[in-house]
Amino acid sequence: MPELRKEPVSGRWVIIATERALRPSDFITAPSAIKGNFCPFCAGNEDKTPPEIMAYRERGSSPNSRGWRVRVVPNKFPALKIEGELSKRGDGIYDLMNGIGAHEVIIECPQHVISLTDLEPRYIQEVIWTYRDRLVDLKKDKRMIYGMLFKNVGAVAGASLEHTHTQLIVTPIVPLVVATEMEGSLAFYKYRGRCLFCDMMRQEISTASRIVLDGTYFCTFAPYASRFPFELWILPKNHSSHFENIQKFEVEELAETLWTALAKLEGSLEQPPYNFIIHTSPFDHPELDYYHWHIEIIPRLTRVAGFEWGTGFYINPVPPENAAEYLRQIKPTGVASASGVPPLKESTR
Amino acid sequence: MPELRKEPVSGRWVIIATERALRPSDFITAPSAIKGNFCPFCAGNEDKTPPEIMAYRERGSSPNSRGWRVRVVPNKFPALKIEGELSKRGDGIYDLMNGIGAHEVIIECPQHVISLTDLEPRYIQEVIWTYRDRLVDLKKDKRMIYGMLFKNVGAVAGASLEHTHTQLIVTPIVPLVVATEMEGSLAFYKYRGRCLFCDMMRQEISTASRIVLDGTYFCTFAPYASRFPFELWILPKNHSSHFENIQKFEVEELAETLWTALAKLEGSLEQPPYNFIIHTSPFDHPELDYYHWHIEIIPRLTRVAGFEWGTGFYINPVPPENAAEYLRQIKPTGVASASGVPPLKESTR
Repeated sequence: MPELRKEPVSGRWVIIATERALRPSDFITAPSAIKGNFCPFCAGNEDKTPPEIMAYRERGSSPNSRGWRVRVVPNKFPALKIEGELSKRGDGIYDLMNGIGAHEVIIECPQHVISLTDLEPRYIQEVIWTYRDRLVDLKKDKRMIYGMLFKNVGAVAGASLEHTHTQLIVTPIVPLVVATEMEGSLAFYKYRGRCLFCDMMRQEISTASRIVLDGTYFCTFAPYASRFPFELWILPKNHSSHFENIQKFEVEELAETLWTALAKLEGSLEQPPYNFIIHTSPFDHPELDYYHWHIEIIPRLTRVAGFEWGTGFYINPVPPENAAEYLRQIKPTGVASASGVPPLKESTR
Repeated sequence: MPELRKEPVSGRWVIIATERALRPSDFITAPSAIKGNFCPFCAGNEDKTPPEIMAYRERGSSPNSRGWRVRVVPNKFPALKIEGELSKRGDGIYDLMNGIGAHEVIIECPQHVISLTDLEPRYIQEVIWTYRDRLVDLKKDKRMIYGMLFKNVGAVAGASLEHTHTQLIVTPIVPLVVATEMEGSLAFYKYRGRCLFCDMMRQEISTASRIVLDGTYFCTFAPYASRFPFELWILPKNHSSHFENIQKFEVEELAETLWTALAKLEGSLEQPPYNFIIHTSPFDHPELDYYHWHIEIIPRLTRVAGFEWGTGFYINPVPPENAAEYLRQIKPTGVASASGVPPLKESTR
């Protein structure tokens, strides 16, 4: 059973893999980029993954066979396990619990495509619905507190398979980054009586210099204190603390927004590796006035960013105003335009 | 002038380079590992760096010429600038100040060696004294609040030159990681009346399973909630909040401890890339009962650790108990033993 251990100084929780632990020799040959030719995520290879948890599939097709459009399976090498008790306990001054949780993979399409931008937005909508459905299902389990949806795209960003997919890790604790965000936005709310994210978005739209896409329901901008070159945040314009409460009309626009934002990054930077993380509220919180769910897209361009996560101190060589300007100028072409999806309104300064 | 901008949600400060900002095309050819054959840090190439700030050198030798043992120069591409006013100000809901600070490079030896372990511990002592001297000098500048000493070793860890060196970034703010650590240890101190780090060290020594080196003045262990495989912390046994208050007898043992800890990592993992960060108290704080300076050594082995700094959530595939056991078994040989330095007492379980 993996363990969840708490670092007592910072309060950070860490998953310690106790089974199948790696040895020094496992690191000497550096893990080689993306694995070979065979893809267990492609249609026809359903038996090469653990049995599916759910899928959106053609009527009449059977689980674990062809006919699906989006498919969710347990991660073959899960960081956390679904069965068991948490058994929260102490170990002297330390705190730990069993590594109970879920680790799932959302396979975004049956064809072997390597970017979400290879999909038409109507298929991306189904990916977004899958995110929501999994959160709604998993939050019924009272042991679970937080669902983190993220994408690693490209070997540098931590991907081990290139077929476009998202991971979902569901944990019995709130990750430190989210806890810190909630504290910060609660402090602002107590002082000002308003949502910090709503205020930020209002200022971004009025300033315009960091805006990349300004839609009806979503706003995409390079944040004022971007840690990384070409970092982008996507915020819903209607205040909402929980991603899973997304409305249908929002899903439609979010699919186009994601397609366009990623296509602009890819057009500007030539298939950059990136991480994509949905920041949402913990399961056990009701709708909150002070927290605002959002998506962070972090291109992994700078190796120079070496010591950053060790110190929390970031040096960004691209001002977000410049990044936004570059991205605004990129006019993506390809599947979305080919499929007749009406383009989003571009921000004009 | 670079800008220091505050991310309002988490309170994180980011250095935004406004001059010499990179463009998308700068990222398309990925920065290639370590640069070629010419080394500006080697003896004889003193004119290839900015003029030296200080050096430990042979009596009678002139600044910016041969004869030095440790040499400190401004970083040629500084993240922060030393001249100017902070001009703290607001920008709507955002906070910023001018990017005032110092960014120096400590060249650890005149020969072209690529690891601190190629130096005899008596030379490492001088490197440690240099760290201290620079902090003591820079804290006289009342604009400056924090001095962060760190090493990036290997291209994966962010090094652009292989000649063994340390960087020092001095900032007018406290980095978020240190601020979080101080809050956490203050909360413990208020509740228990003791230093959290002292308590942790006592438990580590008594448990023994995570100890790598147990000296007279320093304790080296794999932390209980290690974020990364083979992560090591080095703590002074006598409580002290400020690195620059290190005693001479401690410097002697720290030099040996560093040599041995790094040699064990290198012996176990074959020249792993790593970051090394000294966590110490801010300049404007007096000696503190609740905070404890320490060194964190973070091997950069797992690309898999892709999304971690985006989420604050870490998955470590090597339990620290296993890492410590591997490292205890490694008996380093080489320059330190050759130079007749008495070996440190190894931890025995």
